[in-house]
Parts: sequence; structure tokens; C-alpha cells
Amino acid sequence: MKKLFLLLLISIFSFNCFSQTWIWNPGDYEIWLANEMNNRRTDRGTFFPPFWKSDSHYVTVEFSNKFNLKESEVIKIAVEGKYNVKIDGKMLFGMPSAVNLSAGKHKINIKVWNQSTPPAIFVNGKTVKSDSSWNVTNEDKEWIDASGKVSDTSATTYEKAGSLNFNTIDNKPSEFVLSRKRFKSVSSEAIKDGKLYDFGKETFGYISLENLSGNGNINVYYGESREEALDKDYCETLDKLSLKNSNVTDLSENRTYKVSNKDFTLKDSKAFRYVYIVADDSVKYDGLNMDYEYLPEKRCGSFSCNDKEVNKIWEVGKYTLQLTTREFFIDGIKRDRWIWSGDAIQSYLMNYYLCFDSSTVKRTIWALRGKDPVTSHINTIMDYSFYWINSIYDYYMYTGDSLFVAQIYPRMKTMMDYILSRTDENGMVEGLSGDWVFVDWADGYMDKKGELSFEQMLFCRSLETMDFCSKLLNKKDGSYSKLAENLRNKINPAFWNKTKEAYVHNRINGKQSDAITRYSNIFAVLYGYADKARTEEIKKNVLFNDSIMSITTPYMRFYELEALCSSGEQKKVMGEIKSYWGGMLKDGATSFWEKYNPGYNEKKQISMYGRPYGKSLCHAWGASPIYLLGRYFLGVEPVKEGYKEYSIKPNLGGLKWIKGDVLIPDGKIFVAMDKNTIKVKADSGEGYLYFTSCIKPKSDKGEVVSLGGYNYKIKIDSGNELIVTYR
Amino acid sequence: MKKLFLLLLISIFSFNCFSQTWIWNPGDYEIWLANEMNNRRTDRGTFFPPFWKSDSHYVTVEFSNKFNLKESEVIKIAVEGKYNVKIDGKMLFGMPSAVNLSAGKHKINIKVWNQSTPPAIFVNGKTVKSDSSWNVTNEDKEWIDASGKVSDTSATTYEKAGSLNFNTIDNKPSEFVLSRKRFKSVSSEAIKDGKLYDFGKETFGYISLENLSGNGNINVYYGESREEALDKDYCETLDKLSLKNSNVTDLSENRTYKVSNKDFTLKDSKAFRYVYIVADDSVKYDGLNMDYEYLPEKRCGSFSCNDKEVNKIWEVGKYTLQLTTREFFIDGIKRDRWIWSGDAIQSYLMNYYLCFDSSTVKRTIWALRGKDPVTSHINTIMDYSFYWINSIYDYYMYTGDSLFVAQIYPRMKTMMDYILSRTDENGMVEGLSGDWVFVDWADGYMDKKGELSFEQMLFCRSLETMDFCSKLLNKKDGSYSKLAENLRNKINPAFWNKTKEAYVHNRINGKQSDAITRYSNIFAVLYGYADKARTEEIKKNVLFNDSIMSITTPYMRFYELEALCSSGEQKKVMGEIKSYWGGMLKDGATSFWEKYNPGYNEKKQISMYGRPYGKSLCHAWGASPIYLLGRYFLGVEPVKEGYKEYSIKPNLGGLKWIKGDVLIPDGKIFVAMDKNTIKVKADSGEGYLYFTSCIKPKSDKGEVVSLGGYNYKIKIDSGNELIVTYR
Repeated sequence: MKKLFLLLLISIFSFNCFSQTWIWNPGDYEIWLANEMNNRRTDRGTFFPPFWKSDSHYVTVEFSNKFNLKESEVIKIAVEGKYNVKIDGKMLFGMPSAVNLSAGKHKINIKVWNQSTPPAIFVNGKTVKSDSSWNVTNEDKEWIDASGKVSDTSATTYEKAGSLNFNTIDNKPSEFVLSRKRFKSVSSEAIKDGKLYDFGKETFGYISLENLSGNGNINVYYGESREEALDKDYCETLDKLSLKNSNVTDLSENRTYKVSNKDFTLKDSKAFRYVYIVADDSVKYDGLNMDYEYLPEKRCGSFSCNDKEVNKIWEVGKYTLQLTTREFFIDGIKRDRWIWSGDAIQSYLMNYYLCFDSSTVKRTIWALRGKDPVTSHINTIMDYSFYWINSIYDYYMYTGDSLFVAQIYPRMKTMMDYILSRTDENGMVEGLSGDWVFVDWADGYMDKKGELSFEQMLFCRSLETMDFCSKLLNKKDGSYSKLAENLRNKINPAFWNKTKEAYVHNRINGKQSDAITRYSNIFAVLYGYADKARTEEIKKNVLFNDSIMSITTPYMRFYELEALCSSGEQKKVMGEIKSYWGGMLKDGATSFWEKYNPGYNEKKQISMYGRPYGKSLCHAWGASPIYLLGRYFLGVEPVKEGYKEYSIKPNLGGLKWIKGDVLIPDGKIFVAMDKNTIKVKADSGEGYLYFTSCIKPKSDKGEVVSLGGYNYKIKIDSGNELIVTYR
Repeated sequence: MKKLFLLLLISIFSFNCFSQTWIWNPGDYEIWLANEMNNRRTDRGTFFPPFWKSDSHYVTVEFSNKFNLKESEVIKIAVEGKYNVKIDGKMLFGMPSAVNLSAGKHKINIKVWNQSTPPAIFVNGKTVKSDSSWNVTNEDKEWIDASGKVSDTSATTYEKAGSLNFNTIDNKPSEFVLSRKRFKSVSSEAIKDGKLYDFGKETFGYISLENLSGNGNINVYYGESREEALDKDYCETLDKLSLKNSNVTDLSENRTYKVSNKDFTLKDSKAFRYVYIVADDSVKYDGLNMDYEYLPEKRCGSFSCNDKEVNKIWEVGKYTLQLTTREFFIDGIKRDRWIWSGDAIQSYLMNYYLCFDSSTVKRTIWALRGKDPVTSHINTIMDYSFYWINSIYDYYMYTGDSLFVAQIYPRMKTMMDYILSRTDENGMVEGLSGDWVFVDWADGYMDKKGELSFEQMLFCRSLETMDFCSKLLNKKDGSYSKLAENLRNKINPAFWNKTKEAYVHNRINGKQSDAITRYSNIFAVLYGYADKARTEEIKKNVLFNDSIMSITTPYMRFYELEALCSSGEQKKVMGEIKSYWGGMLKDGATSFWEKYNPGYNEKKQISMYGRPYGKSLCHAWGASPIYLLGRYFLGVEPVKEGYKEYSIKPNLGGLKWIKGDVLIPDGKIFVAMDKNTIKVKADSGEGYLYFTSCIKPKSDKGEVVSLGGYNYKIKIDSGNELIVTYR
């Protein structure tokens, strides 16, 4: 047991390279930044905050660490907040920005209070540096008695410090902003009393009026479509400005800004392709530019194939995901701009196959969870609580970051406590008062009452995740294993219908309903709750059955197509990708949409939520081909955490050739395949290439192992390209 | 049941006069302001925050109300934070500062986000005004479906808005400051390299250097005593300033301020009587003033008698309580300046007999409790959790404010959940890891192990309070009644020692210890857990027994003397007041101290916590004569909540005459007594005067009712003075 714990510690600390950085109470910066992000939504010039509970950082945090110095050194201290410094238990005067430490053993405590932004510190000495090895607490159980004796402090709970990549003293966490790049509009057109500017494609940022002068009103109408920008009364976002003596007043916030160098760049970002400016005649400006705002990513995966349409789909998917990967993975850039758990888990998975940006995944997971006590499901949605828990399993498998699992685990536990406190007499979840049972946006009627098979499968998977994480961290929370097993044993008898040979949608008062929907059948395949035989029945009776209500969101198509891929239907899936995402491209998409109904006219296509332009035309969950092509066509996935072991099962899916790079923590895995050759090269880790061949395959390295039938595998050594000839 | 609930509603709403005011989520402003207050402590120029968990306000809050207008009106809206306004479910553009409402029914929703200070609103129309009738929530469980249909919002939890007395639009809660008044030093004296200023008595505020000029360093040493101010190395508080070109830099915070009009007033307040200024020769100033900072109180009770020393004790007690009644009731003004629950409950009680400032009581109760989840006892001290709960019973009895009880009740419940989760197999509390079992500062050894009888009595009383409040609010939390009864039944068998005829201090593993201390014996009398016979035994064997370790803090003397008063020992108590508090006056006190050991030399008297000037010489709990004289000599106390019914049991306690005013919610009760006459006059409510007389008493009004023996009572009509002749 002791040995296991030691191993765990090693694995926790070996992941993190302990680079010097600003540190804080884990999760606190993320929760604070999420409030900044979620509160930027506007609805036709009005501030529109989220409806769920917003939490806050701990305002008082103590940071501490111990050091043993070979020689004396001076440490620099930078802090966000009011603070004190204790060296070896003795408080120093004031708020020192530098401290001289003598050689020998020292304990450093820095205690910070900051109401507005998260308490954070940066310490820089020759060997003493702030990093994830520091302890933090928001509550030291330490007091003195009348004689001045300090109490036992063993009850104080310490956590390892949270950090991202604020690695220099001037790079203060609270001042974080995304990068910007200026673009010009590609065309403009005078229409009625205004001018319509087209930026050529969906984009996001701050518009800037060139050489602005005069006095009067300026109204700005944004559109993801031309129709939206021109519709003053119904476009989803707008700005109303008043220009007077070189000062612009933003009328929605009653704030005034100076026009500098005659150019005026707006303070709030918006999503748009088109911008319609209607200004008083007395207002002059030369043209419209925009400052594109984005999160710079250091690395990027790739995909290409012989089919240009598929390449275009991958590129537009990439752009869609880039636009929605910001301070956090958000849903869509025009409307909510909020962090939603069900949307985010898909962004994470796509991200592992695009930029492998672990920081943004972690930020988003913290932000979604917030603080205790748990008073509702994540985003108030039942399914989203399960996705939140399950996303941590995915994160661990792709990154191997057990430090993060250890940091977030207490909140996983209180989240699961909340869920378990709301189960029915069968140990299943039903929508109770205040629970949003979402599943998907559906065009037909979907019953949300009673025990939904879909929700139980997600619930069961999250109990399995809890069990996995508690074992990983050597926690004594053994009940998860039993709870998961119990629920799993109930799912098949409760929901499998032998006559229909499919899972029914729900059960009310112990009675199966007649309805069959795709959702639970998809997840039964994905999570392995349906065995091989049932998977085939599901494919036949549900997934390939046109009489079952079809899915009209890329959101659920993600899982539907993944379920098909996982059962070897890549060829079928390639057809779906081309028709569904290719359909959006044919309908003019420059980024992928929230919902797509092939065959709708343009007006119907862009309306949603009872509003003519309610639909988001750049929605993260639209980008799923990124994930499907990387995981099920290039075929790369981790087998052990952090790609310590991986498998590569490339599949042409009817294409002539495919090739691409999939990022892993320490590099990438390159895969290229055509009808006769497979090439793979992995920068690190070990793994196997799996493939089928109707001839006996040849390899330039390693031994081809036959798995029976046409199936083969070859072990891959990292660093060397492996070339296999097959047919 | 329905009727009871209706009655309750009436009583909740009738207390609050619904005056127009700034409103917020109940408790949030108080928690935020407490952080401001608790974080002003400094220790020799270093910031010193509390060690317990600091909570924060909810950053996003929605305010709503419904109105039915006879005619149209314009409402003005002022908000602390970023906000939106919905009228009848429709969002208005921007952040409107005025809205025109037509005649008829309307629903108003204002949603506010503010990270730095609590979201708060002020609404002012002819009839539409922000007040405690508004609903607030930090989590609306409201969402829309794909068609735009809004979900059922019945799961949203609303509370009634919190408020204090910010009653004008410009009186913003976040800008609240106490009042100030300038005082000159009464004398000064050149000593060594500096100058010592004496302000004549203990005081609190901001020192101000007159006509400051030149360049150089200025060191400021504060002392509650002359010795402390002159001891540069050990005085508890100091300021280090650097003056250069009319700018003063505060070296502890590295902040620079302009010297305006040559006077320079420091930015941080301190407690002191003496100030020792040591400045470079190149620094010039003409003298030292101070801006006394205080909470203005509208009303004040009074007390006087024939004994000048007692009158002086009452006046110094009043000044001590005034100095420690600030944004909150704090412990002492020099050192902690923190809000401590055990200290606060005594301040509340004294306050009911001095200024009857309910607002500061409520603020302090909210501040102490903070937010869920409960992760430790209040201030980490076990006893302080119980005092916190019990203070709410007191507050209700004195004020009748059931609205506040309703608002705070959910946090009482989660506090009690925490306590109950930590009881042992006997259902009793023992100090577990992280629990500070305080009881009192004692000069002798006090065992804190096992089940302390003192803690069980406080625990039992707080279970009784939970039971009382749950019944008051018609809650279905019936278990408190049973829990209280069970514990009460266990206390006597567990701790009463028949041989010693007293409660023993503690029990370890089911075995009574030998130790007898005063604490539990005092509370057994006060809470009525000891019957009349046992009370007499306790008096004889403990309270009047000099071999039992004596109490050296005014803190526990409060309860000790109260126990004696409640059993008719006013004469004895008067002697104690004169010797103990009179002793402090003779030792030079200008405000009452944290701890007092009669007979200690001056040096020993002012040291504490192992530090030569560690003791606080102005400590709220020193002011208890205020309470004792009002409640047990003037003899006024509420019998029903809010003085709807009261009793007056005046007692000369050996004095020749006493007189005074005790404040009640709607006015005051005047009592005067000498050896032959009692005069009482109450502004409202009804009550009885109880007294003893060895002759048949006469009254100018009402009927004298004999209670047997020498005991009488007379019913008092409010508004009319009643004069009784007796002997």
C-alpha cells in the first residue's frame, strides 16, 4: 500500500515540471476568469449574465514552502493583493518585495488578501521559486494561547498550488488578455441609410472605425449572416455609440472613451462576418477594420486526404474550434459565449486531436465546477454534471496529469454527493424540480419524465470514473465501485426491450415507455454497455433506421458517428461527414453551426429559440470531424495515460489516402496510409499499429504479428518511422 | 397550521417598516464589510489577516418584485455593479438609470454582477421603491428550450433582500465609512530623539501631523500605555513613513500620498493613548492631532446612582463599548480588531442596555457566520459556534425581529449540521483535530480533553435555540427538540458530582475528572440546568469558594456575576464591580481591559501572549457593568420578544439610589429607585414591576398585587409614570 502511494506521488510530481510561475489556490483563478468571460455576453446591447450560481475565489490564501539552501540568496516577491511574509515563523515588516535568505533550512509563508482578483504570488530566487510544489490553504487552523504558544496546526488542509503559464514576474494573472491581430474588411456596400461591411468569413473581435471624426450617433449591427446584420430590429448583437468632441460614449454602459489618433476601437468584442454601420451624416469615418482576438496555440495537429471537401471540412472545423477556444472552451462566439459542460467535453476531445492545449482543458473543468456547496447540476443540466465528471477521465487518459486529478478530486466527490442525494428508490436519476434534463435539441417531441436510459448510462459512466479516480489517488472511497456495478446491472433489464431489440427512451414508475430514441442506444455502444450482438441490433434497429427521429445537432452527431466508428463503420461515417458538414459548407458556412437541418431554406436554417437569428453559426460542437478524423481515421488513441502506450488503427473509410499528425504530450504521432502502405512515426511512448491486410504484410522494422484472419499488429518504437506494405 | 404560518408572516413583515433603502443578498454586504474590517489588523507595520476562512459575497444577484400601479411613474435605478433590467420579462437596452412604468401590474427584475463589492440596488419611484419586500436570488433555475419557451422557475430559491440604513441614492453601501471628529493631543514631551504625545485617554483613529514639511523619515510608535509608545522594539503597532518633496510614502504598504495643505493625516487607523514620534531633524511639523473615528449612535441609555465610582465605571464601560462598536462589534481596538463570536455575544447584550443598535448586531452575526460550506467552528472555536447560535435567541427576544431569524435560519441549520457531524458516541462534543476549545484565558492549568461540561451546556442551549427558532419559523426540523432533551437529560448524571456538590470540569472515556472549575457551574445556573437547591450548592462550593481557580478576564466575570445576580446576589455583585472594575480605574484605566489581575504590578498587568504589551487595554468584554447594571439593578428585561412584554425588577444592591433609561425598540423604560420610592415609565409594551417591601406598598396607579411574603407586583401601562412607595 505504501509503495503504491509512493508510486502515485512520483507520478503526480513527475508530470509537472515545476517551472517557475505565478501560483494561486487551485481553481480560484479559473473561477474568477470564468466570471469575466461568462459576463461578457450581451443581448442587443444589454448585459446578459449566466443564470446559474457564480462562485468566487477565496479572498485570503496562504502560500508556503520549505527550502534547504546551500548558500544565501535574495528572493524577489511579487503579489496580487495585500500580503505579509513570514520567514521561519517570524513576520517581516511591511510587504517586502525582496528578502535575503541565509544558507540552511527555511520555511516561507506568504499570506495574501485580495477581494477583486485571486490572491497570487510570484517568487524568484536562485533556487527558491514559486511553482506547483508550494502548499496553499484558505484556512489555517492556527491560534495562540494566552502565553503566546502556537496551537497544533495539523488540522490545516493544504493543497498543491494551482498555476497556468504566467511564467514571468510582469505576466500578472489578473491582467491576462488574449492576442489580437488587425484585419481589414474585404468589401463594403452602401445600403439604405448605412454601410454593410463583409469580413469574408465568420470572425471574432473588436471593430475599429478608421479616422473617426464629427459629432452624432453611430449604430452598429452585427451579423453572422448578411440578413442578420441588415435587420436592425432583430440582429442578436449591436452597439449604440454617441460621438461628441472626440469622445465616444457607449450608450449601453454609459461609459465614455477618448478617440485616439482618430481611430476608434470598440471595447467589447463581438462575433460577426458582416457589420452594418448606420451613422448620422455628421459623423465621418474612412472604413472599418477589426482586431481579431484569439488564444495563441503553440502546437497544432494536421489532417489531409485525397478528398478536397473532407480537407475543407477539417480546415473549417479547425477554424471553428480555434474561434471557440478562448480563455475557456465556450459554446459559440455570437450568443452565449458561456462555458457549458456538454459542449466543453467535446471541445476537449477535439482539442486533443488539434492543439493538445491541456491548460485550457483544466481551466474549463475548474470553471464549470465552481465551489462548494453544490446547489444544482453543472449549468443546471443533469447530463452536464455527468459529462463534467467523465471529462476528467478523458483528460487523464490523454495527458497522464494525475496532479490535476488529485486537485479536482474533492470537488468531483462533492459533485457526486449531490447527484447521489437525488437518486430515486432504484438508485437512478430522474429530473427533479430545478433539474434541466437536456439530452439534445430535438425537432420532435422528447419525453423528459421518469428514468431516462440516456441519463442512467451517463450516470453509470461517471460512477465508473469516480471509482477509477479514487483508486488512482488511493482514496478510501470504495463505495463507487459497488454503486457503479449495481447501476450497470440494472440498466439492461430496465431499458433493453427484447421485442424492439433496442434500449427504450425512458421508464416511468417502473414501466418501460414505447419510445426509442438514438441517444441511449448510442451511449450503450460507446460505453460498452451493449455487447457485440446488441450493438449490431442497435445499428440495425436504431442507428440505420430512418424511422427513428434523426439528430439535427452536430452535438449528438458527434456521439452517433463515434458509435458507428467504434463499431467499424468508418465508410458509412465518411459519407455522413461529407453530406452533413459538406452540406453546411454548400449552404455557405465559414464555420460550423449549432444545428443543421439539411434541406431547410436559409431563413429557417439561421433561426432558433423562436428568434430569426437565434442560431449560432460558429459553435464548438460543430467541429467534431476534427476528433472523428484523428481518432477513427488516423486511428490514434492513448491506451495508457498520457500516451505512455498508444494504439494506431488507421482506417481509410473509403478514401484513397489519408495522412496527419496527432499531438501527444511530448511530441506527435505521424500517420499516413494509402491502399498499399502505412507509415507511422511516434515521438515518444510505445504502442502498436493495428491493421488488416488480405496479403501477408511486410514491414521495414519490427515483427508483424498475426492476430488471426486478416488482422495484424506491429510494435512501434518511438523515434523511427515504420513503413508497412499491405493490401 | 395555516393560521400559524399567516401569523408568522404578519409578524415577519410587521417588524420591518420597509423603508426605501439600498438592498442586497442578505448577509453578503456584511461578509464583504467584515473582510474590510478584519483585514485592517497590523502587527508592527505588517498586515495581519485572520487565520480562519474568509468568505465572499455572491457576485451575481437578481433582485425582483411585483407592483400594481394606480398611475404611471418614472423610477430611478442606481446599482453597484454591471446590470440589466427586465420589465414584465422583457430586457431593456443597456443599463438604464430611469424607467417609465405605465399604470397596472408589473414585474421588475434587476440582475447585477459585481466581483469587488456586493451587488446592490436602489430603486426610487413614487410608489416603487427598493426595500426588504424585494426578492433576491443568486441562482435562477431558468432556461429556455430550442423554441424559446422559458422553463418552469419554481425551483429557484428566493430570499427577502438584505439591507441596513443606506437610505439615499448617494449613500452607496460600498462607500460606507465611519464618522470622524478631530481632537488635539492634551500634552507633549520631548524624550530622547522623539516627542511623546498624550491624548489624555484611550482613543482610536488617524493621527495627523500639523504643517508637515521637509524631507526624511518619520517613525510613529503607538501605545495604549506610555511604556508601550516609548518602546520602539516592542510596541504592538507602529508606522514608518518617508517624506520627500511633499509626498509621504507609507513604507509598510509602499504607497505614496500627497501632503495637502501641509497637514498629513495617516491612512490607517490605530488605537492609542500615547504616540511617540521619532522624525529626522530635516522633518518639521508643528504638532499632532487625531481624527477620532466612531459609529454615530442615534440613541443611548443611561445609568446613575449615589456612588461616584460606580457612575465612573458605567461611563468608562460606555466609552469602552463605543470604541469597540464599529462597522461590527470587535474584540479590542489595538490588536486583533477582529470579529470574535464569544466577544460579540457579550457586546450585543451590553448594546441592548446602551444604544440598542440592532443593525450592528445583525451585521456582526452575518459576518461571523460567513457562507456554506461550514468547514470549522466560528473563529475555529467550539464554544464560539454555540455562542453564535445562542446570540440569535437573545437578539430575537430583545428586538422581536423574526425577519432576521428567518433570513439567518438556513445558516444556523448548516452550522448545527456541522456540530452534529462531530459529536461522540454519547452525542456530546469533544475537541477534535482543528477545534479550538477555548472556554477562557486562565492563569492556572485547564484541561481541554474529553467532554467538557461547559461545552455540553453551551451545546444544549444551542440545540434549544435551534428548536425555538424552527418552531418560530414553522419549520419541519423537529429533531432539535429531541436532541436538546436527550442532551439535557445526560448533563446532570454525567457531570454532577454528589460528593463535591458541583459540576466537574470534564469527563474522559466516561470517567468524571476531579477538577472543578467555575465555568460550567456558572452556566448551569444561568441556563437553569441546575435547580434551586443545586444553585445554592454551586454558590457555596464554587462561586463563593476561593480555593476554586478565580476568573481573571472580564469575559467570564460577565457570566459569573450574571449568575450571581440571577440568584439575587446583587449586593455581592456590586462589591465585585467596585473592586474589579474600580480596581482597573485605580490602576489608571481609561477604558476596560482584556484581562485584569488585581495586585499585579504595571509591567505584568499590561503584558499578555508572551509579549510585553500584548494585552488589549480597550476590550469590549471589559464593559459588562453596562449590562449588569441595566439588567439586574435597573432590572429591565424582555419577557416576550421585542419587549412586547417586559419585567422590571429593580434592585439597589446596597446603593442608596439608582436611576436610568433602558432602551426598547420603540422608546425606553425609565426606572428610578431609592429606599422608599420606585418610579417607572415605559414608552410602549406592557409589563410588570416586581419588588419586595416590608411595609404594604402604595402606588399612584394600578393595583398592587401581593405575591406572598414581601413580594409584590404591579402592572405597568405604557406612557404613564408609575410611582410606588415601599420600604
